[in-house]
Amino acid sequence: MDIIVLKPTATEEELRHITKKLESRGLNANISKGTERTIIGVIGDTSKITEEEEDAIRAMSGVEEVMRILKPYKLASREFKSEDTVIDIAGRKIGEKKIPVIAGPCAVEGRTILMRIAEEVKAAGASFIRGGAYKPRTSPYSFQGLGEEGLRYLAEAREKTGLPVVTEIMDPRDLDVIVKYADVIQIGARNMQNFRLLLEVGTVDKPVLLKRGLSATIKEWLMSAEYIMSKGNQNVILCERGIRTFETATRNTLDLSAVPVLKQLTHLPVVVDPSHGVGKWDLVAPMAKAAVAAGADGLLIEVHSNPEEAMSDGEQSLKPDVFKRLMGELKPIAAAVGREI
Amino acid sequence: MDIIVLKPTATEEELRHITKKLESRGLNANISKGTERTIIGVIGDTSKITEEEEDAIRAMSGVEEVMRILKPYKLASREFKSEDTVIDIAGRKIGEKKIPVIAGPCAVEGRTILMRIAEEVKAAGASFIRGGAYKPRTSPYSFQGLGEEGLRYLAEAREKTGLPVVTEIMDPRDLDVIVKYADVIQIGARNMQNFRLLLEVGTVDKPVLLKRGLSATIKEWLMSAEYIMSKGNQNVILCERGIRTFETATRNTLDLSAVPVLKQLTHLPVVVDPSHGVGKWDLVAPMAKAAVAAGADGLLIEVHSNPEEAMSDGEQSLKPDVFKRLMGELKPIAAAVGREI
Amino acid sequence: MDIIVLKPTATEEELRHITKKLESRGLNANISKGTERTIIGVIGDTSKITEEEEDAIRAMSGVEEVMRILKPYKLASREFKSEDTVIDIAGRKIGEKKIPVIAGPCAVEGRTILMRIAEEVKAAGASFIRGGAYKPRTSPYSFQGLGEEGLRYLAEAREKTGLPVVTEIMDPRDLDVIVKYADVIQIGARNMQNFRLLLEVGTVDKPVLLKRGLSATIKEWLMSAEYIMSKGNQNVILCERGIRTFETATRNTLDLSAVPVLKQLTHLPVVVDPSHGVGKWDLVAPMAKAAVAAGADGLLIEVHSNPEEAMSDGEQSLKPDVFKRLMGELKPIAAAVGREI
Amino acid sequence: MDIIVLKPTATEEELRHITKKLESRGLNANISKGTERTIIGVIGDTSKITEEEEDAIRAMSGVEEVMRILKPYKLASREFKSEDTVIDIAGRKIGEKKIPVIAGPCAVEGRTILMRIAEEVKAAGASFIRGGAYKPRTSPYSFQGLGEEGLRYLAEAREKTGLPVVTEIMDPRDLDVIVKYADVIQIGARNMQNFRLLLEVGTVDKPVLLKRGLSATIKEWLMSAEYIMSKGNQNVILCERGIRTFETATRNTLDLSAVPVLKQLTHLPVVVDPSHGVGKWDLVAPMAKAAVAAGADGLLIEVHSNPEEAMSDGEQSLKPDVFKRLMGELKPIAAAVGREI
Repeated sequence: MDIIVLKPTATEEELRHITKKLESRGLNANISKGTERTIIGVIGDTSKITEEEEDAIRAMSGVEEVMRILKPYKLASREFKSEDTVIDIAGRKIGEKKIPVIAGPCAVEGRTILMRIAEEVKAAGASFIRGGAYKPRTSPYSFQGLGEEGLRYLAEAREKTGLPVVTEIMDPRDLDVIVKYADVIQIGARNMQNFRLLLEVGTVDKPVLLKRGLSATIKEWLMSAEYIMSKGNQNVILCERGIRTFETATRNTLDLSAVPVLKQLTHLPVVVDPSHGVGKWDLVAPMAKAAVAAGADGLLIEVHSNPEEAMSDGEQSLKPDVFKRLMGELKPIAAAVGREI
Repeated sequence: MDIIVLKPTATEEELRHITKKLESRGLNANISKGTERTIIGVIGDTSKITEEEEDAIRAMSGVEEVMRILKPYKLASREFKSEDTVIDIAGRKIGEKKIPVIAGPCAVEGRTILMRIAEEVKAAGASFIRGGAYKPRTSPYSFQGLGEEGLRYLAEAREKTGLPVVTEIMDPRDLDVIVKYADVIQIGARNMQNFRLLLEVGTVDKPVLLKRGLSATIKEWLMSAEYIMSKGNQNVILCERGIRTFETATRNTLDLSAVPVLKQLTHLPVVVDPSHGVGKWDLVAPMAKAAVAAGADGLLIEVHSNPEEAMSDGEQSLKPDVFKRLMGELKPIAAAVGREI
Repeated sequence: MDIIVLKPTATEEELRHITKKLESRGLNANISKGTERTIIGVIGDTSKITEEEEDAIRAMSGVEEVMRILKPYKLASREFKSEDTVIDIAGRKIGEKKIPVIAGPCAVEGRTILMRIAEEVKAAGASFIRGGAYKPRTSPYSFQGLGEEGLRYLAEAREKTGLPVVTEIMDPRDLDVIVKYADVIQIGARNMQNFRLLLEVGTVDKPVLLKRGLSATIKEWLMSAEYIMSKGNQNVILCERGIRTFETATRNTLDLSAVPVLKQLTHLPVVVDPSHGVGKWDLVAPMAKAAVAAGADGLLIEVHSNPEEAMSDGEQSLKPDVFKRLMGELKPIAAAVGREI
Repeated sequence: MDIIVLKPTATEEELRHITKKLESRGLNANISKGTERTIIGVIGDTSKITEEEEDAIRAMSGVEEVMRILKPYKLASREFKSEDTVIDIAGRKIGEKKIPVIAGPCAVEGRTILMRIAEEVKAAGASFIRGGAYKPRTSPYSFQGLGEEGLRYLAEAREKTGLPVVTEIMDPRDLDVIVKYADVIQIGARNMQNFRLLLEVGTVDKPVLLKRGLSATIKEWLMSAEYIMSKGNQNVILCERGIRTFETATRNTLDLSAVPVLKQLTHLPVVVDPSHGVGKWDLVAPMAKAAVAAGADGLLIEVHSNPEEAMSDGEQSLKPDVFKRLMGELKPIAAAVGREI
């Protein structure tokens, strides 16, 4: 909290009361009396003022508004660390010139189908295999994932193809088993503010792919990254996957402007998931291209050999041949922005 | 899924393919060929069609759109149970003529202050004491709650005042300790789609107060209630607390129309939390009155003896005397809609 | 613009450049150098700084953010005029203890049906008759209104019932003919930022009912009121009618918290239109009650004798008997908040 | 309207009543009785059913929902005209392989500055000059444009540079004067549903650039195009410029997925305005690139020689050298998607 705007009716008494409070926190007040309002510039190390103290000042009588100038996140900020973070996952890097593509089915449905998809995305040029063993589903009556069995299949797919595994965690109690099999732990959009889960994955030695919540501002998203980093795990990958708006022509509204905004605010790599962003397979290719043009450090794309039989999100999955064609089409776009794919 | 709309370009072959798929699920297709589109009405027990099967049909070639007529939730629906659910918590009922008020601080900050607030809200006419021992905070650097110590203070406040305790769970691993102290377990807005947590609270014998997620549709909210109920716990209380919109004059936009909409769709009681909905204490009273007029079965209101010193959400807390005045003002509104407070 | 926050990298040279610019506008800069940021408090009559000057300062090098403390509207503000504006329309007042109800069909469809509805809403206790002669319709192929013929019917209905007429303007070229027949000129939601139309109705001697735009913030809405007032017409009635959000269970999301927010910011009367807000007739009654409880100065309700035959918005119209019952149910709510209906 | 879903409680009597109503419109009812719901497929030329008739059926007793299968727009639809519309403006084409760029200041501020910017954008490769002579401004106290004087400067800039002129209309009464000077008439976001203005520009022989409204769905946007086309003017250019969401890091949220969605639904060309979409000059370049990669048929970019002195939207304007660099960077992106710039 750095600026306090007083109400036009604020009294000298109220001003003194506020000033005292600031001084009790080791801060100084620089008072600007304008013709219509008095403004207090707070001087000193305001980064130590907590949210609750900010709220408390907002509740003091005479106060109209409190504006925080400093960003509430620190470890995630570009100011704290100016050079881009590059994350190395078994030799595959995220955050460098080369743009890795994470591909695979929404859910792991069985051994055979996963192996087949893994081979296909590998052949098309993907750098990671993805697939959910634990699935967050809107309905309790939908397929909830194969659990550890699914994780074993993912590990087997990695052995066969050499592709590191990205898979989602939903429950802190699954952390040990997921760490055993996964190379990158995904936090899904619906868990972006599951703060206990964030703290938990902050303690392990695996990169975390943190999806943006459906109605999360960029600032809140970075605060969730900060949760993970505050526990020691600095390897956070941000993943834009669409926000909720009034538009229903697409499943979500993919906010590609988040990519350049994040590039200014944070050193963390930014990946885009056009599949969830649009929710329809025939819109994925143009948005994947747009994501690369906007500066994304990676892509996450759903691929399924037989979308009609998929047990989850079939509508938005690319068939392997469509995915392969897209990988080819992305190359000149990547080159146009000084990258490789 | 009950209606399948074909693309204008759909072939007879595609139509046959779809019809066969339906028959393989024991369903029949009633085909309406219009001048511009062919529509398939699906006949049979479509409630067994899962989300993933719906998605799969959506991905079939020739299909333009799939529309589900039946609601995807069952136990929570008014059609499944037509009479209002009344929940009895140590003799205090939610869902009857009398509108109970759940009041207390956002977070439990200490023993003395909690006892004082508990006495005050009791004196003003509240039916429940609330307070968070585990707090979901946007920042990892903010006060995260006192944990079990906070729960013990809540239990002590219940002993002193006779008010049952409502408190939030954030992590399935805290369930045992929370069940030990709480009378009603709250699921916060950010955890509304923390599906594992929902399943967990579905297994215990305590009512659950389920807050609406910031960007959750009413349908998704009822699906989350269904998660809890599918595990056996039928005592779910829905709590509207504001949704995220473009408007910044209030913290959230309190969607009071959700109250009559829910009254049509579900038998579960509906409570309104105007404090989080607006985020400013001087807007709480008019919105509390509006909530009662709209048909709310209960209110959840933040009260703090000293909002300036509150460790969380001070700005939106009512002082005890303001709360007491509000309780008096609510009486004639309740009477006007045939209720009591 | 009152506060300028500099980038951490801002140089002394940039600071001087900004200071000079302010001085060239007759303003002074109060500079607060914090440990991490420099903040400029702008002192002097900042109300003369236009939006474009604010934008220009924002574009200067070294500037991170510009925050305006003063509200950008003046005539509409509570600070400019502290007592409530009461508007007298042929003896019917808006903004006083009595809460007038504006009722009638969405569109004027014909002479006979309008006369019948007018008699019915009169009998039920409405204070104004409403109906559109010029209709904004999403589709060019929909009924666009009867034009002047419709206005004549409205005038005739007024003669018969004594109820003043509220009707919508869509085009500045219709102003003369509408002024001839109407008592209150309505600006619809889709024209809230049709600035030329606002300026035009600002020049006439008839009150204006200004509906909130679908995605207008409260601040933008007040700026639109300011447009009208800046031309001399101080009789502006604000009408909340729902905003656009992600929720589809209702046509719009009725933002009732706008009522108390506006009561703090402006002296203008605030009316609520629950019919458009929810879009379904069976949700209108609870939201009308909630609006009165929240402090609305008036209601606007669609009533149609035969909603099934309505040429516009049939789904959200009350039948006269339902409307009459609602009028009765509103009385004790109004009394409970110290009003009459 | 093509599908009518009945309530579970609907009676045979109600069903007959609905069927009769359909027959009275020359339509047939194909009735599917499922185990839980009865569904009516409406057969015949349903395109003649107006919105109000649809609403009326929705209001009939026994009806739960009415779903329209056919798109409510016709002339604008891909089904009506399958090949892409190419618009020729003095030899500059929009909708072909070459992607034209429309560049210039937000507002025309004076003769000298406009001439300079026009020369600069021409030199950088722009195909059109833009600038507002009539400006929609949120505040009545802001610069409202130079009016016809501004139009004369634009015409002079065209003479000097050969660039056709794009400029905005706000009021039907300005149509004659704007037609005299402009090559393309722009309808701004705030007037997207100013239906009278749409009808008016539908009667002239100049292409119309129709910006998307801040909270307009893609369907509503196409309905507004249909308004223009229904009056005879088939030369409509759609312009995505960001929608209003909860995110405040950018001025609006640029919805680039609208580009491929529109390419499926309509034959009209689609242009993207990243300047208004993001509102900050340093985010314009990545979003311009992303727009081209997503398939945009053109770009609209704000350029100002001296953003600090701009009388409108300075913060989002590119300086000419930055614009020139961007034009160079766009070339390989355009080539990568089989286009030219």
